[in-house]
Amino acid sequence: MSAPLRLAVAGLGTVGAGVARLLADNREVLTRRCGRPLELVAVSAHDRTRDRGVPLDGIAWYDDAVGMAREAPADVVVELIGGPNGPAKAVCEAAIAAGRHVVTANKALLAHHGNDLAEAAEAAGLSLNYEAAVAGGIPIVKALREGLAGNGISRVYGILNGTCNYILTTMRETGRPFADVLAEAQELGYAEADPSTDVDGVDAAHKLALLSSLAFGCRVDFAHVYTQGIRHVSPLDIEFAEELGYRIKLLGSARITEHGLEQRVHPCMVRRDTAIAKVEGVTNAVVARGNFVGDTVYEGSGAGAGPTASAVVADLVDVARDRRAPTFAVPAPELAALPPAPMERHQGDYYIRLSVLDQPGVIADIAAAFRDERVSIEAMLQRARSETEAVPVVLTTHRVEEAALQRAVARIDRLDTVVEETRMIRIEAL
Amino acid sequence: MSAPLRLAVAGLGTVGAGVARLLADNREVLTRRCGRPLELVAVSAHDRTRDRGVPLDGIAWYDDAVGMAREAPADVVVELIGGPNGPAKAVCEAAIAAGRHVVTANKALLAHHGNDLAEAAEAAGLSLNYEAAVAGGIPIVKALREGLAGNGISRVYGILNGTCNYILTTMRETGRPFADVLAEAQELGYAEADPSTDVDGVDAAHKLALLSSLAFGCRVDFAHVYTQGIRHVSPLDIEFAEELGYRIKLLGSARITEHGLEQRVHPCMVRRDTAIAKVEGVTNAVVARGNFVGDTVYEGSGAGAGPTASAVVADLVDVARDRRAPTFAVPAPELAALPPAPMERHQGDYYIRLSVLDQPGVIADIAAAFRDERVSIEAMLQRARSETEAVPVVLTTHRVEEAALQRAVARIDRLDTVVEETRMIRIEAL
Repeated sequence: MSAPLRLAVAGLGTVGAGVARLLADNREVLTRRCGRPLELVAVSAHDRTRDRGVPLDGIAWYDDAVGMAREAPADVVVELIGGPNGPAKAVCEAAIAAGRHVVTANKALLAHHGNDLAEAAEAAGLSLNYEAAVAGGIPIVKALREGLAGNGISRVYGILNGTCNYILTTMRETGRPFADVLAEAQELGYAEADPSTDVDGVDAAHKLALLSSLAFGCRVDFAHVYTQGIRHVSPLDIEFAEELGYRIKLLGSARITEHGLEQRVHPCMVRRDTAIAKVEGVTNAVVARGNFVGDTVYEGSGAGAGPTASAVVADLVDVARDRRAPTFAVPAPELAALPPAPMERHQGDYYIRLSVLDQPGVIADIAAAFRDERVSIEAMLQRARSETEAVPVVLTTHRVEEAALQRAVARIDRLDTVVEETRMIRIEAL
Repeated sequence: MSAPLRLAVAGLGTVGAGVARLLADNREVLTRRCGRPLELVAVSAHDRTRDRGVPLDGIAWYDDAVGMAREAPADVVVELIGGPNGPAKAVCEAAIAAGRHVVTANKALLAHHGNDLAEAAEAAGLSLNYEAAVAGGIPIVKALREGLAGNGISRVYGILNGTCNYILTTMRETGRPFADVLAEAQELGYAEADPSTDVDGVDAAHKLALLSSLAFGCRVDFAHVYTQGIRHVSPLDIEFAEELGYRIKLLGSARITEHGLEQRVHPCMVRRDTAIAKVEGVTNAVVARGNFVGDTVYEGSGAGAGPTASAVVADLVDVARDRRAPTFAVPAPELAALPPAPMERHQGDYYIRLSVLDQPGVIADIAAAFRDERVSIEAMLQRARSETEAVPVVLTTHRVEEAALQRAVARIDRLDTVVEETRMIRIEAL
């Protein structure tokens, strides 16, 4: 039996307490799998008195997480504070400077500073592990970094935010509007008091930036992730999607195109018979497409104390067993700086919902706008007729470039007969 | 750049050629991920003249695979011959004796000799990697061994044989009988000329024995996998399953029960809304249940040159990066010898299809047999009525022990009014 792997945990919120509980509950099996004990030697949190449901006797307490990272007699510092900057960043930097491995669940930090942290850790011969940062308990970082290492990856996409998927699933099942379902999700603890990081797609964008780097061997480039959330998705769109054979999902999708690295997070219509369409509620799912393996799908809980702790501890087992991998699958100095593919160059099919006054000539005006931009209409649905109120008209297009589509929509929105802003949702070929 | 990792490949069939092609096609990305080249230095196959679609110039040819494993100047021997004994086993043993790592896709070999081979490899400080042996390109071995290492695993199950899943899917979609669909699958190359290893559940049982060992830290115990294939599944059963809200799948399932390690491969009825029910065609899927992560699902191609080569090369990347793990997640000498749970002690719900003469009293006789064995009926369906021909009667039971159910069925089969052998399919709670 080798010496214990000594752990210092910064942050004892839900996830930190979950990690401490897992280490206690699964001590025996962990020791067998690690070949040595995982020993919690130091923790840092603001409130020493709160009952976290797990005994912390005999463990050194630090008020200052950065001081702990610098001074505690630990082999690994586990950063569970969160946030893209501030103490979380300082803790990781201090740990690396002190020659300690880092395990973190912090997607925001790595999305913003992953390149620098990876270089620092690798230069010092240390591991920087972050399985918990992407899709919670699903071991997708390991799958991309090691399990699919034989493949050239052409695409990675998935449902990366459980809050959004829960809201979209509930909207579809109940027909209720976004605001209503969000409020319920907040009551149930599926959404935060300030939901913007989730519902505006930022959290999914953080995760996607990490997946891209892992999949394509390129530098993390969060700044160029096109990001759009789900606030504007309406029950009407969900109904039309059903009618057209689709489900609406907030997807993160990355691939290499002729224009460069395309990274997008936005609501999509996906065919109802695809694996991703069937992923409901708070579940996360990721699909990775390899040139030899084809599509592989990974599904599980994307958040919560248990799944996140599971991923954090898997990272610790790797450290205990001395299993190393470059942070983003290839050594940080060799990561390619890929040009970002401009969203205007994106090509795909589109769903367009217009709100029009049902007057003679309105469809002709709309059709003319599309014709002039060479946007080819695949189908048109007009469900209601009214001489006094606006009615919804839905169009789907054949493959077209985003810029042309946007120009056509802008022109349509200037028509007098179009009374609300036109809604567009991209139809995703998977 | 470190020295190349030198590879000797035994067996150049579909998979072996696929590995050679992957090494050539993805050379650049592999070198970046490995930190050094993967270099094919020796191969062994019977036919030197066959065009395998990949250049093999300058690579040493051996007629004798065992001799190659012993003598070729290789760091790793890749065993792709197949079969539970004979040359495949001799190649692995010779490689380990000569101090070479082993990568294999051979589930039959490991199901029969995994314990001994793991002990030998680990004693010599060598890796024995076999990602390709279970669920093809899906990195499930790595997920269980490393990605979910933080968890106590309570259950692992899945669709482990693409041939059977293809046949069952096609039977459901077309209403055609087993023999008919099997013949078609053979023509399409989805089933072998001798299909028994697949359709009798043996291949799935091999894989399940490896999953059990990985999940529960126990010795591989293929001899105690209860195994039943899909030959007896009829279109009528598939129809009734649909009517009752189920799909019929050949599942492998392992868990720890109060009676010991339960390992079963047999056709199951699974609720139509479960993830596993939606896995169609030749796709494989595995679900692992951890005490912290909950259920995680892994899905992808279970066979074929590309997916299998992907898994083989992932194992090679691990060797190249010097990432080691005990063969079955804990060191071989520490693997527990768990008592096998007898199938008679299995508890669950059952689907029973009887073929009866529709005479007064027949249902009463059947009900009495169940009552006497304390089998509680959940539902009964009698779809047809006929005074001259046998009609099907379908029953589902509440939770009952297998032994009692079997006794009741045996008694029912002795009734004069029961004209064909009664069919039983276990209903699986997932």
